[in-house]
Amino acid sequence: MNYEKTFQEIYNELQNVEDFGHVADYIPELAHVDPNQFGVHLTTVDGKHYAFGDSEVRFSIQSIAKVFSFVLAYSRIKSDIWERMDLEPAGTPFNSLVQLEYDKGIPRNPFINAGAIVVCDILVDELASPKENMLAFIRSLLKNNAIDYNPIVAYSEKKSGFRNYALVNLMKSFGNIKNDIDKVMDLYFTICSIEMSCRELSESFLFLANNGVVPHSGEQILSPSRTKRTNALMQTCGFYDEAGQFTFKVGLPGKSGVGGGIVAVHPEKYSIAVWSPRLNKKGNSYKGILFLEEFTTKTKLSIF
Amino acid sequence: MNYEKTFQEIYNELQNVEDFGHVADYIPELAHVDPNQFGVHLTTVDGKHYAFGDSEVRFSIQSIAKVFSFVLAYSRIKSDIWERMDLEPAGTPFNSLVQLEYDKGIPRNPFINAGAIVVCDILVDELASPKENMLAFIRSLLKNNAIDYNPIVAYSEKKSGFRNYALVNLMKSFGNIKNDIDKVMDLYFTICSIEMSCRELSESFLFLANNGVVPHSGEQILSPSRTKRTNALMQTCGFYDEAGQFTFKVGLPGKSGVGGGIVAVHPEKYSIAVWSPRLNKKGNSYKGILFLEEFTTKTKLSIF
Amino acid sequence: MNYEKTFQEIYNELQNVEDFGHVADYIPELAHVDPNQFGVHLTTVDGKHYAFGDSEVRFSIQSIAKVFSFVLAYSRIKSDIWERMDLEPAGTPFNSLVQLEYDKGIPRNPFINAGAIVVCDILVDELASPKENMLAFIRSLLKNNAIDYNPIVAYSEKKSGFRNYALVNLMKSFGNIKNDIDKVMDLYFTICSIEMSCRELSESFLFLANNGVVPHSGEQILSPSRTKRTNALMQTCGFYDEAGQFTFKVGLPGKSGVGGGIVAVHPEKYSIAVWSPRLNKKGNSYKGILFLEEFTTKTKLSIF
Amino acid sequence: MNYEKTFQEIYNELQNVEDFGHVADYIPELAHVDPNQFGVHLTTVDGKHYAFGDSEVRFSIQSIAKVFSFVLAYSRIKSDIWERMDLEPAGTPFNSLVQLEYDKGIPRNPFINAGAIVVCDILVDELASPKENMLAFIRSLLKNNAIDYNPIVAYSEKKSGFRNYALVNLMKSFGNIKNDIDKVMDLYFTICSIEMSCRELSESFLFLANNGVVPHSGEQILSPSRTKRTNALMQTCGFYDEAGQFTFKVGLPGKSGVGGGIVAVHPEKYSIAVWSPRLNKKGNSYKGILFLEEFTTKTKLSIF
Repeated sequence: MNYEKTFQEIYNELQNVEDFGHVADYIPELAHVDPNQFGVHLTTVDGKHYAFGDSEVRFSIQSIAKVFSFVLAYSRIKSDIWERMDLEPAGTPFNSLVQLEYDKGIPRNPFINAGAIVVCDILVDELASPKENMLAFIRSLLKNNAIDYNPIVAYSEKKSGFRNYALVNLMKSFGNIKNDIDKVMDLYFTICSIEMSCRELSESFLFLANNGVVPHSGEQILSPSRTKRTNALMQTCGFYDEAGQFTFKVGLPGKSGVGGGIVAVHPEKYSIAVWSPRLNKKGNSYKGILFLEEFTTKTKLSIF
Repeated sequence: MNYEKTFQEIYNELQNVEDFGHVADYIPELAHVDPNQFGVHLTTVDGKHYAFGDSEVRFSIQSIAKVFSFVLAYSRIKSDIWERMDLEPAGTPFNSLVQLEYDKGIPRNPFINAGAIVVCDILVDELASPKENMLAFIRSLLKNNAIDYNPIVAYSEKKSGFRNYALVNLMKSFGNIKNDIDKVMDLYFTICSIEMSCRELSESFLFLANNGVVPHSGEQILSPSRTKRTNALMQTCGFYDEAGQFTFKVGLPGKSGVGGGIVAVHPEKYSIAVWSPRLNKKGNSYKGILFLEEFTTKTKLSIF
Repeated sequence: MNYEKTFQEIYNELQNVEDFGHVADYIPELAHVDPNQFGVHLTTVDGKHYAFGDSEVRFSIQSIAKVFSFVLAYSRIKSDIWERMDLEPAGTPFNSLVQLEYDKGIPRNPFINAGAIVVCDILVDELASPKENMLAFIRSLLKNNAIDYNPIVAYSEKKSGFRNYALVNLMKSFGNIKNDIDKVMDLYFTICSIEMSCRELSESFLFLANNGVVPHSGEQILSPSRTKRTNALMQTCGFYDEAGQFTFKVGLPGKSGVGGGIVAVHPEKYSIAVWSPRLNKKGNSYKGILFLEEFTTKTKLSIF
Repeated sequence: MNYEKTFQEIYNELQNVEDFGHVADYIPELAHVDPNQFGVHLTTVDGKHYAFGDSEVRFSIQSIAKVFSFVLAYSRIKSDIWERMDLEPAGTPFNSLVQLEYDKGIPRNPFINAGAIVVCDILVDELASPKENMLAFIRSLLKNNAIDYNPIVAYSEKKSGFRNYALVNLMKSFGNIKNDIDKVMDLYFTICSIEMSCRELSESFLFLANNGVVPHSGEQILSPSRTKRTNALMQTCGFYDEAGQFTFKVGLPGKSGVGGGIVAVHPEKYSIAVWSPRLNKKGNSYKGILFLEEFTTKTKLSIF
């Protein structure tokens, strides 16, 4: 199937949709992105590539990076990771403290901010050089290894990240953060600052569509069972307070970030990354979700 | 594949698992069920049947019936059903009023009690004889049409259903219930009282694995797109506060009831019903979930 | 001191204050009240009377009646009333279900709706003819005994009282309502429908300023200790979510109702009733609170 | 009246009460206090002193200091302090983040931790040398000016104060903290570390019973109206989640601290300080509250 023709068709249709969203503007580096950029890249498990638009432009992947950090922790940790976080949908806006206080410092899942901070706390314990090891891990998922952190983005996030500091302090007060807060948060903000293109995102998530094996290297990142479980987790928890909507309309497991990127995976078939910087009220790419909804409708390729 | 052999293997393994759960006991009719009964039935879209244990014994399907009432409303209503309920996971125990008050009377999804009550309110408007029409609809999904409501169960539920009356009154105070409360609740409690066997449940859910078409009659209940969406909704919202766990461990869309039944659907492939009356702390069949987890692990038939 | 001159002065000042509030309009009987009426009546423990404006016009006292029902229960019940309700400020809007669910059906105090409903449940157990006994009790506080329930108001409240039915059903689900819901709610709505004038309200609350003794009859309603405690309870809980504001600005224990009435008590000195139908956002009489704030400022008669 | 005889009587009675509480143990300096110490000191507005037990032993006054910081801010600030905090009872345990998130960073009142942190933020703006000015202010309320901060206590609080850091970061994320977090929290923890005896506490609160005038110096700290309002605020908000209980049972405005101290004020009459280190479940001195309840019952000196 020629997906690029489908990409073009959907893109044309979306031109008629008023673009209601706003670019994330809480840090200058996100606020200054050209909001009209749009890119898509689909990679199949058997190595085919389909691209459209600004698919080679790197952007700040933000919360999409939470999948990388979770997978690295999940692949390494021997103790029970699920004692320190749950795996249920959040059911409330994405960085709510209410749930965290009610559940005595246990985040609902590893893809909300609080959960991703606990994952960073685990990685600080598990890894010799957390930032370098994390970057090396993501690079190993790609043939090209030019991707990197953006220290200016990380610094800006840290300067305005009071709510995330509230989360980590609250969890520390409940004993669910083991390491020094500054060390954990430095890793957290650094990981979120990675910049990748749609092509790179699509490639790097392909192992999740391929039973845990990176196609180009043959490396087994996660067992087939843990791969399925990671996909299941993205399905129920990958889109903040909009996970149900995304599952309902798109029908694929995926993860979004406030940089406007979304990656979704069709097990055994492909991974796809879309990028459109304007966000809807729930903090997910406005046109990115519409695009994927149209894509799975036209191709009938939902998992359901 | 001979699923019956797999059923037997898993059943044997589960014999060694201590059965921690308790049978639902808030009404006598549920409390008096023999807790050691166990049944499974799998029906494939191409008409094969695999059964095990007490698969022909009828039990109270309880909340599983919420799928039938939702599907009937979804297939008939022209106005936007999603203005009156959301489609996000609940994120809190299954009949919490907190969310309902916070969201001004709009339930999180049609499969929690509050949402199913709104669905009944819609059906009271849409159907000439709601109880009869509802029963006729479920019967039409089966070749055998001997299933029926249990009026004693319905009566007991009504007598002890103060929390459900709190829900409906709260929603009425926000204007999200249009009809007389007693009429709506009579339909609600009646629908939950249906008794079906694993075989009947498995057969009746088969259209959800078959793009919306009932295999034995060829009737199109829902469009393929709405069928996928109903499955997606079961995936994120079918297990109260345990939807994430079920998705993570079993990896199939499904729905449970406090009678100890669970139905799950593998799109394009099969539907499966399990019954074991003892419930875990979240109100879902304790051994039913363990069974399905083992089943999708052994058969590698998760959708993820 | 000639309080009537002070009343006139404050009234004149308030003429220049824009009257932002709205008359309660959820039932026709409250909506149709002339909003420009204004009355005050102060009665001293040594029998002096000071009146101003529409002080002889009867109005619906609504939640002020919760003090009467609480006092009657408190004066009669032998078992520990505080096992079934707390005596802390609500801290959330006045009929919130969130607190009630969190605290497993135990209301925060007897002056919020949920607490007053529990008080009615107690009275149904304690009294032979609850409605008649209740009315007789209030009449005994007055020389004049012409006051009565307004059955039309009670009926209207019942027809629109879905939120109160949500409260009582929720409490019943937690086992904190012993009697039939309809019987309890009939008493609750009936008590709230009493109509009294400022003079009658002021007179009837005088025993709370007089160590529990009704001045005109010498009857001891409550012990001095329980009288002080009832006043303390009005101080912290008498004004829904505005108890702190009222204590801060007025500095007297009191109780308000959505009919626009407020009664306040200065222990050892007097009781005062004000009536002005327009309500502020918190559901308390807008000008009534302003009037009392000015009154205790001018007379320096706060208890603090 | 010879209060010392009453003190002795009540103390004797309390010897028979099992002492259920526990000394605060989250920092070593509080955990190591001898829990059997007990002191009382009452000072009348006309200069009489009544003492009992360990009334001259200094202890960590902790949250009682929130009254001093509030009064200093309230006496100096020209802008509206009530735009940045409310003056309603908290209604939830004393350092809950739920309320703060719900109310978008506005604390319920100045005596809960979050409110006292905002007060410190105001003082950082208002005062040239906040810590020195604050100490000078408290010393000015006493004839003896030997009281001081305990830097070890302040340091220990800071090291374990993750929950307070969660509060300040959350408020900063809502824009309700203007200054650098470390500067504000340094002031906050320092103020809480003041050590005073019952005699010193009683003396220093006497201006609140004396229309805002310090008896020994004649200095007007607050206007009579603002003094009454400060007392009113202590009445509704001085005891965390137990303000209603304290008002109900003791009937005086007051403030407690986790060091086991309680100060209460009888306007126009006296101020009284009690100290007993074991705390009840709500974090207030277990025997301190019992003592004051008995004291106002025996002396009939409640304000109600």
